[in-house]
Amino acid sequence: MDALGYYNGKWGPLDEMTVPMNDRGCYFGDGIYDAALACNGIIFTLDEHVDRFFNSAKLLQIELSCSKDHLKNVLNEMVGKLGKGGLLVYWQATRGTGRRNHVFPGGQSNLWIMIKPQEIVDLSMKVKLITVEDTRFLHCNIKTLNLIPNIMAAEKAKKEGCYEAVFHRGEIVTECAHSNVHIIKNGTFITHPLDNLILPGIARSHLAKTCVQLGIPVDERDYTLAELFSADEVLISSSGTFCLPAESVDGKSSGGKAPELVKKIQDYLMAEFCEATGYIKP
Amino acid sequence: MDALGYYNGKWGPLDEMTVPMNDRGCYFGDGIYDAALACNGIIFTLDEHVDRFFNSAKLLQIELSCSKDHLKNVLNEMVGKLGKGGLLVYWQATRGTGRRNHVFPGGQSNLWIMIKPQEIVDLSMKVKLITVEDTRFLHCNIKTLNLIPNIMAAEKAKKEGCYEAVFHRGEIVTECAHSNVHIIKNGTFITHPLDNLILPGIARSHLAKTCVQLGIPVDERDYTLAELFSADEVLISSSGTFCLPAESVDGKSSGGKAPELVKKIQDYLMAEFCEATGYIKP
Repeated sequence: MDALGYYNGKWGPLDEMTVPMNDRGCYFGDGIYDAALACNGIIFTLDEHVDRFFNSAKLLQIELSCSKDHLKNVLNEMVGKLGKGGLLVYWQATRGTGRRNHVFPGGQSNLWIMIKPQEIVDLSMKVKLITVEDTRFLHCNIKTLNLIPNIMAAEKAKKEGCYEAVFHRGEIVTECAHSNVHIIKNGTFITHPLDNLILPGIARSHLAKTCVQLGIPVDERDYTLAELFSADEVLISSSGTFCLPAESVDGKSSGGKAPELVKKIQDYLMAEFCEATGYIKP
Repeated sequence: MDALGYYNGKWGPLDEMTVPMNDRGCYFGDGIYDAALACNGIIFTLDEHVDRFFNSAKLLQIELSCSKDHLKNVLNEMVGKLGKGGLLVYWQATRGTGRRNHVFPGGQSNLWIMIKPQEIVDLSMKVKLITVEDTRFLHCNIKTLNLIPNIMAAEKAKKEGCYEAVFHRGEIVTECAHSNVHIIKNGTFITHPLDNLILPGIARSHLAKTCVQLGIPVDERDYTLAELFSADEVLISSSGTFCLPAESVDGKSSGGKAPELVKKIQDYLMAEFCEATGYIKP
């Protein structure tokens, strides 16, 4: 078994797992999720992910059927059933089970877990990006299962040979389809503020804290597409990628003007991950 | 068996049906749906619903694995397994099956059907409405499984003792959580135009055509909350409700100033339904 699925206490090989058709996740996307990287059986920054997961649930009035400690225990137990290599640990809660009806069904929420192998990222890689108008709802601060605009943008990026799609609302850059996005300009780290237009990324938070540790000023503010195109560096971050610089945006060469700063940030983030999980960089 | 579930050729009692955890509907809401009313084994306006379903799929680049005729045959066959009473026939297609990954998986889309009893609406009832800021994405013309803002609004309406929630973007009224909404003012039927902010309701379309048949002018244009509050009648429409007038909006008495017009419209719509399905009004 290289990948594991779990549903309300039952678990087995991911590709063989089934769930009730009446789960509200199946027809409304009525649920929230979180995901973290694991290595050597240790889930990195698990407390922060579980805190965010509970916050997402609260914002959607989903009453979780377990405590934070219980959830962490289950996640750790399931990770323990797989190998010691890199894993993506994904979990979601859906509002409950019942015949399709918009109003809430009452009863217990459902806990899903999906764990699959994930290679630890090679931070020397550079990514290509495209830009896409951000047409999503105004609840992007909640990590929900309503992800159609994200998957459409991710597919568009892939078709254009790119790694990620940068969303923008008019001139204002928000985030990517499955990452946050930031720029470095004149030695300052600039990132969209925490509002309802972006996800409060845990990697984003670690990245900003790292900048502070390294004496790099952090400016959380709206920034524009024009600033993105003229940035010294464009960085994306997610739990799986830590921090990767972009080499192009919409086919135009981008960033690459502060590589030492990027390297310093990446080294700091990777050291943190290695210390927590015992991962040894190849 | 009072309700039936179907998944890619397998069918059984709805409440016992299961689906693969790896279906993209389960974790991205990556799918589209449609729903129609059936009575006496006949699905009302099925062609229109199937056309819209195929259009939704096209707009999201979901390649359906069956033809329109095949889909209609399967739906009719499944309806035939249940009784002759009122049924809500719901079906959805999800993009496919695979371990969670934003980019498209390739392969076949999945067809889901859920059929359950539904009483034919009593058109003499009046509904209470609330208003809710419309924070949804900008793809409301597509009937997708990303419905969190809709279910949140529907639950809010229910908690306030109301039947539906009227969405508005600033001052502009768009539609409801699971209905379209319209007003009658000075003998004219006014409804939000078909754009990316509302679903092209089949009941909406029949309602507008009925008005034309009855010599009632139809004005498809943006209208405001102020116009809603001062309308002669406020009407909601959906495949399950045909056309229902509101008696209050946000607790304030509403409409009721053109009841004969509402009755004429309702009688026309109900006659159409009875003729198509053989339903006899109690």
